[in-house]
Amino acid sequence: MSYSESVHADVVAKVEVAIIGAGYAGLSAALSLVDAGIETIVLEGSDRVGGRTLSEVRPTGVVVDHGGQWVGPTQTRLLALANRFGVETFPTYWAGDHLEIWADSRVNRYRGAGPDEGDGLHEYEEHITVLDALASTIDLQNPPASPGADLLDDESVASYLRREVPNEGARRRFALAVEGVWACEPGHVSMLHFLFYIAAAGSFDELMETDGCAQDSRFVGGAQAPAIAAAAYLGDRVRLGHRADRVVVHDDGVLIETTGGVVRADRLIVTLPPQAAGALRFDPPLPPAKARFVDRSVMGDVAKVHVTYPEPFWRAEGLSGQATIYDERETGVVFDNSPNDASSGVLVAFVYGRRVDPWATLDADARRASILATLTELFGARAQEPIDYVEKIWSIDPWIRGAYAANPTPGAWTAYGEKGWRRPTGRIHWAGSETSSVWNGYIDGAIASGQRAAQEILDRRA
Amino acid sequence: MSYSESVHADVVAKVEVAIIGAGYAGLSAALSLVDAGIETIVLEGSDRVGGRTLSEVRPTGVVVDHGGQWVGPTQTRLLALANRFGVETFPTYWAGDHLEIWADSRVNRYRGAGPDEGDGLHEYEEHITVLDALASTIDLQNPPASPGADLLDDESVASYLRREVPNEGARRRFALAVEGVWACEPGHVSMLHFLFYIAAAGSFDELMETDGCAQDSRFVGGAQAPAIAAAAYLGDRVRLGHRADRVVVHDDGVLIETTGGVVRADRLIVTLPPQAAGALRFDPPLPPAKARFVDRSVMGDVAKVHVTYPEPFWRAEGLSGQATIYDERETGVVFDNSPNDASSGVLVAFVYGRRVDPWATLDADARRASILATLTELFGARAQEPIDYVEKIWSIDPWIRGAYAANPTPGAWTAYGEKGWRRPTGRIHWAGSETSSVWNGYIDGAIASGQRAAQEILDRRA
Repeated sequence: MSYSESVHADVVAKVEVAIIGAGYAGLSAALSLVDAGIETIVLEGSDRVGGRTLSEVRPTGVVVDHGGQWVGPTQTRLLALANRFGVETFPTYWAGDHLEIWADSRVNRYRGAGPDEGDGLHEYEEHITVLDALASTIDLQNPPASPGADLLDDESVASYLRREVPNEGARRRFALAVEGVWACEPGHVSMLHFLFYIAAAGSFDELMETDGCAQDSRFVGGAQAPAIAAAAYLGDRVRLGHRADRVVVHDDGVLIETTGGVVRADRLIVTLPPQAAGALRFDPPLPPAKARFVDRSVMGDVAKVHVTYPEPFWRAEGLSGQATIYDERETGVVFDNSPNDASSGVLVAFVYGRRVDPWATLDADARRASILATLTELFGARAQEPIDYVEKIWSIDPWIRGAYAANPTPGAWTAYGEKGWRRPTGRIHWAGSETSSVWNGYIDGAIASGQRAAQEILDRRA
Repeated sequence: MSYSESVHADVVAKVEVAIIGAGYAGLSAALSLVDAGIETIVLEGSDRVGGRTLSEVRPTGVVVDHGGQWVGPTQTRLLALANRFGVETFPTYWAGDHLEIWADSRVNRYRGAGPDEGDGLHEYEEHITVLDALASTIDLQNPPASPGADLLDDESVASYLRREVPNEGARRRFALAVEGVWACEPGHVSMLHFLFYIAAAGSFDELMETDGCAQDSRFVGGAQAPAIAAAAYLGDRVRLGHRADRVVVHDDGVLIETTGGVVRADRLIVTLPPQAAGALRFDPPLPPAKARFVDRSVMGDVAKVHVTYPEPFWRAEGLSGQATIYDERETGVVFDNSPNDASSGVLVAFVYGRRVDPWATLDADARRASILATLTELFGARAQEPIDYVEKIWSIDPWIRGAYAANPTPGAWTAYGEKGWRRPTGRIHWAGSETSSVWNGYIDGAIASGQRAAQEILDRRA
């Protein structure tokens, strides 16, 4: 049956390209298509745009980034988008000494890019060069075609580290790095994906560091601001409250059934996180390799907690506000997230991976008390007196269902990745940060993926 | 808000217990509850009962089991259910010689439980005793509490085998065992789950063997017959075409929004395969540990192809019809699936794991040709002349989305299993074969899980 023959009383739009999801991938795809003069609609289930970015002006006047928040100098697509819409950046505050807490409550205080000494520090830094060398062998356009991909993909980062990094302190550092960057545990990620992700960012330090790296700068008005501006530019092409439920592919087009009615399109770009995309009902069903690569790409767990004080009091004590915590408590990493003018002091505490559930299922008072206890241990008694406290638990966000990104589990890339990663499925194209070869898992990768999916469609018309 | 205050014009039923899914888990839960006098409704999205069993009478008159098909002597719950509804069994045919094909097209022919010699055979059999010993240490009621669980769960079966089983032929045998029993690749399964699954069945040989083991017997009328009989007994308590979409938990009950209307219940039992359950929209959202354990429990891939001949001609040549194939072709295992009276000859070819997609995405003629070529290589030219050929590709079944069962990926059990496996989530109870401590992944385990979930509810009333 052709879709022109199908009867749908509730068709609300007929366009050349429909896009599911109004995060950075969907909005960027739409911008590319609209800039090329192609009739496009963006279908967003929730009541907002921006996906995994969410900026809120708190009663204190402080803008809090509940989701993605940083931009680095090699994230040129995000910088260009922000520039297009006049959104400015400012450098992340990292002057002063950083702190580390170890399992025995020892606190290391150090300045600059890393401590001079500490548990397993030397072994950790030595092994980073090994990882960067391995990452340089990855085929970014087709990771399962990389040399030795089967062996790398068959094992988790945990089993790799156990064999290759005998020093326990170094392994603990890598475990926190996995939690901080991949938002899951070392046992959860394929070693091939771990290396691909490093390669897509440029290097291990690109992922981990602040100055000149992924955490270099922040956005005035928050990281959602460029998305909101892009959506305003796209106007009524962006339809909020249109949750896609079912996708029916016909010989001559695609019907997308949404809670706001049925949309007809020649082609469709799906930009949802993998398992959210997999929860759509596709008719005909997705081919097994696509379905299973999606099923095996699992979101990480993150909660971000912003705690605001009258001023960034730690700065006067020579502290940067950055801390890394190697014991088993809820908080893994703390950053200074104050506004650029330091008109108030904001600390953000990250809760990662397996630590999210035990903390998130406490009652609200206990959650707050545990976070403040950690901040107090780090920064002293003044941390007990915030003027604002707010949490965002991405694991229970009904639209995103986790954060930051989905990580393929061991064996997924090599069994299903070549066909299942981002190759178009007939009239369906695939975007979302997980489908990017550059800054995979980041806002910049989402933008790259949307632009690439749009280009696939433009190339067909050329 | 209490649900009694909520306004739903389309409430079609108010019951004490609602059950999502009319597979063996859901039907067994319903039988236990109805036998105890509790008002129960079973909501099934598709147009049939039986879940991962599906028996079809072909035009030849042969009953073909597209899904689960066997029963063994320790699967006492399934035998009891069949007995309750008068469904009889008959022994699987396995007299004669079995065949093995290796990568260089060598064919081993052997009799009985296993070959006397062959690539890596000795090392394979020796290591089975190691696996059984490890499996005996697993805590069946709480696998992540088993000794050494963290180390076992952090790695895949593939990385374990690479370290512990140096012989390549033995590793190839284990790989086919994983494909045949877990329906995925060795890199996809956590070693802890692999051992748990062995322990839940009793031993490695219980899973692999025919006589006296998991493949011992078949059902007259097919393995769906007990489910169909149970559904007939339950009558209009089983509602087909009621696809659950959203579950809203209130202080005093649960609303289940389905395509057939809204159902109110005091408590709910969800029996869907994990990721299908995860695709439901829960309000409030599931706690992170539950959501993520579900997300990390991924279905395997299986296609079953039944090929029917006028007679089981291989038997006259002293062949059992059983074959195991260790090269890279589509077919991994072949069994004689003829009717008990041998009134025709039926071979079933299994396509597993990563091999499903390349075969399933061929056109129909090419799929058939490749299967018949394998059967011809095994059983001679008569295999080219079937009187019936039928496929079931479970990977693209829109309801089940894979087969046989979901396997937790590395790290899932220890990060999320204790809370996320089967512990009730408030008013929601969890069943399905994946939640069973006995014959996990099998029909018998599904029945056990349904009975256990029903008992959780009965215990609350006691």
